[in-house]
Amino acid sequence: MKTLLLNADMGESFGPWVMGLDHEVMPHVDLANVACGFHASDPDVIRMTVRLARKHGVTVGAHPAYPDMVGFGRRSMACAPEEVENLVLYQVGALAGICRAEGLSVGYIKPHGALYNDMMRDPEILAAVMRALVAYDASLPLKVMATRDTSMARELAERHGVSLWFEAFADRAYDGEGRLVSRRETGSVHHDQDAIVDQARRIARGEPLIARDGRELILEADTLCVHGDNAESIAAIKAIRAALHGQEGA
Amino acid sequence: MKTLLLNADMGESFGPWVMGLDHEVMPHVDLANVACGFHASDPDVIRMTVRLARKHGVTVGAHPAYPDMVGFGRRSMACAPEEVENLVLYQVGALAGICRAEGLSVGYIKPHGALYNDMMRDPEILAAVMRALVAYDASLPLKVMATRDTSMARELAERHGVSLWFEAFADRAYDGEGRLVSRRETGSVHHDQDAIVDQARRIARGEPLIARDGRELILEADTLCVHGDNAESIAAIKAIRAALHGQEGA
Amino acid sequence: MKTLLLNADMGESFGPWVMGLDHEVMPHVDLANVACGFHASDPDVIRMTVRLARKHGVTVGAHPAYPDMVGFGRRSMACAPEEVENLVLYQVGALAGICRAEGLSVGYIKPHGALYNDMMRDPEILAAVMRALVAYDASLPLKVMATRDTSMARELAERHGVSLWFEAFADRAYDGEGRLVSRRETGSVHHDQDAIVDQARRIARGEPLIARDGRELILEADTLCVHGDNAESIAAIKAIRAALHGQEGA
Amino acid sequence: MKTLLLNADMGESFGPWVMGLDHEVMPHVDLANVACGFHASDPDVIRMTVRLARKHGVTVGAHPAYPDMVGFGRRSMACAPEEVENLVLYQVGALAGICRAEGLSVGYIKPHGALYNDMMRDPEILAAVMRALVAYDASLPLKVMATRDTSMARELAERHGVSLWFEAFADRAYDGEGRLVSRRETGSVHHDQDAIVDQARRIARGEPLIARDGRELILEADTLCVHGDNAESIAAIKAIRAALHGQEGA
Repeated sequence: MKTLLLNADMGESFGPWVMGLDHEVMPHVDLANVACGFHASDPDVIRMTVRLARKHGVTVGAHPAYPDMVGFGRRSMACAPEEVENLVLYQVGALAGICRAEGLSVGYIKPHGALYNDMMRDPEILAAVMRALVAYDASLPLKVMATRDTSMARELAERHGVSLWFEAFADRAYDGEGRLVSRRETGSVHHDQDAIVDQARRIARGEPLIARDGRELILEADTLCVHGDNAESIAAIKAIRAALHGQEGA
Repeated sequence: MKTLLLNADMGESFGPWVMGLDHEVMPHVDLANVACGFHASDPDVIRMTVRLARKHGVTVGAHPAYPDMVGFGRRSMACAPEEVENLVLYQVGALAGICRAEGLSVGYIKPHGALYNDMMRDPEILAAVMRALVAYDASLPLKVMATRDTSMARELAERHGVSLWFEAFADRAYDGEGRLVSRRETGSVHHDQDAIVDQARRIARGEPLIARDGRELILEADTLCVHGDNAESIAAIKAIRAALHGQEGA
Repeated sequence: MKTLLLNADMGESFGPWVMGLDHEVMPHVDLANVACGFHASDPDVIRMTVRLARKHGVTVGAHPAYPDMVGFGRRSMACAPEEVENLVLYQVGALAGICRAEGLSVGYIKPHGALYNDMMRDPEILAAVMRALVAYDASLPLKVMATRDTSMARELAERHGVSLWFEAFADRAYDGEGRLVSRRETGSVHHDQDAIVDQARRIARGEPLIARDGRELILEADTLCVHGDNAESIAAIKAIRAALHGQEGA
Repeated sequence: MKTLLLNADMGESFGPWVMGLDHEVMPHVDLANVACGFHASDPDVIRMTVRLARKHGVTVGAHPAYPDMVGFGRRSMACAPEEVENLVLYQVGALAGICRAEGLSVGYIKPHGALYNDMMRDPEILAAVMRALVAYDASLPLKVMATRDTSMARELAERHGVSLWFEAFADRAYDGEGRLVSRRETGSVHHDQDAIVDQARRIARGEPLIARDGRELILEADTLCVHGDNAESIAAIKAIRAALHGQEGA
């Protein structure tokens, strides 16, 4: 069984507003996708989050987004590719500036929310993200979504000389193409811990999931995205981690 | 005559709004204080400004500010020292991210507007800026204002291990303490080119200016801050440059 | 010849950044589309703009936009209809608050930029704008684009009880459906003053224009949108105004 | 015993971030100080908050602030009086726009955070707030702090023709001048419910409190500010309400 790295979105607080149980999640993940101030976070939140990551030996990744605080970066914006390239550079750099102060550096890039979705379906946006990554540090992996057909991402990555990390989800239902079923549909999010752990194990072993349309779906993934919003999800993270490390409960 | 470096604020456009004649100023200065997105500029403007600096071999400096776009960073904000430290790190990093994409790096830090004024009178703010600088890259100079008594800045710089670049102004009147006379007072800004060039020469030669209160004022400066808002100021920059290089018109 | 009202976007400055020649345009138009702080303007700019409108007896209209300052409201954002409804209410109210201080009130609503384009092609967005208008003041006209087929807007307007003002452009080329040819295409913007005045006259008389695809296009318009960015466009405004008032030069 | 109205800050969520237990507080207060989008809230949050106020028959007040989302309006900003006047008008209008959609109107104005503190000590800022209020609707009361010496506020109010509502706090310690003891000092916030209710009763009866310096302090108040952050504070609100209505538990 392949050891999947666990990643979680972190540093999503903003000013006086707290989001996420970062202190409880950080000890149990490998990769922290840290918001960079365009959809969440601010310089003080980033500093605290990077310190927390350092304390737990977690790799810090940049989680850049469209400039949309009130919409939390979840609303697609018609940005030109050059705009995407520059806003990714700006955000990665800003996070890296604070990482330097803590003796760390940015370890990978994972676009957030609508930017992530847009780059998965629009090669111009994905290429813009890759240009930013290469211009900043071509050795950084780019986290993309593991779907049934990953040829577009792979071809662009090869052309730009970018390493990809494919990520999958243990707690979400997939459609036949390997895309996440919308949260608006019933059954799109798994709440049963056994089901979540089973899906994590299947992904780790390269075994098929059953997609929403009944087809088998094999996802080749390097990392699992987990969530740390509440006690239930923290418990799921621990259970997944235990399962992936071959233990029976952590 | 000491060769004073010329520095100018650059990259102060924002989205669709243009400010400053950057293309006309850049060929004539040594140091570009580039806005970092908190009081002016955005990722696209920064990219263009850094490219322009690279083309003309101009050193890029970070020009971080309080988060106040509508007030252009000119309104003092009661930020805690930790907040100042982190917002400087964030902005320096963001600019550095875009510099990397153009093969450059940030060469110095000069706080902007109200943050600059606040750090010159409040050692807690100045110390916070210095902590950010040291945490980011202790070899970067910090640009501060050349005044009559620079002991506070010098002592803090020594304590933090920070190099200072003192800057003076050729087109502004000084009060007896070596602070700029407020723009609201008449005669605070010189418009006569001969007077501007004369003030530049005096500063370069270590000769005294006459302060507003009639006292002599010697400013020990490493760099002169010039402005590029209009045709008149561009002409003044050229005249200063010619004078400082010992020519009679350039 | 029908007397078309002239309207222009106003109050598009922001903080220290100036945009538009509002002082030169205001005396020559009937309707001022005033930016409300989401894509341009700020409370001080709005105050000045409303004062200027009052001085010249110009009707103030609200020009609400997506929340995207750096993109000047020109980038489509995937806002939910409820979000559109509320952000229109917020912006109309904000402008109205400042109008009250000057003894005026908001006279109509014209969405800006991408929000304007989106509402013209998406009935859900248009309905959301209309809900906001009706909730605020059902007697306010909504400015929409005069195109070949205006049935969608007319039907929704009837259903919501909204009055429409159709607007046309004297300085832009139209495609066969009566939509503006993209600014990225050559010939999309008329620069010849005679051509601009001729197009204004044809629209005022109900005579056909020749669309980009060669077809005749009759636009039923209540108002013409003019621009005041530079000396040339100010001259065009005066020429249009003179022509529409049956004079030979004003 | 005078019946003090209870007021609470409401609508302090922002985008995806939730703050305050508005649904639990609203049934127990008379006045809702609704954030207007400069330090907290957004058009959707305002809409929800105004709906909730309407449902419970609570008067909606505008809670305008300095433009400082990340600092939650708690950091003093050196805004010019004209800037304060205009940003208050903008925010009151924006809230009023959404109130209209719910059939309500703004019932009073209470500046927030640093703007509130600044106006209590700087007559220029207080006068600017009053000018905005009068320009918008001179019949609206302005909420100010009940202190030992309220002559400055009373004089300015008389000069501007503004009605004042004085507010006091049941859960905060006062200094000898009737100002709140800073939250950074121990004992500045009462947590004991009996002490809170006792302080509320004393204020309602016009009986003296004991200030931090040992002096007696009589606060003439029209309204008590309560907080609804957690279960403990909700319980305190209910206990205060019961006490002020002469019941023994509610």
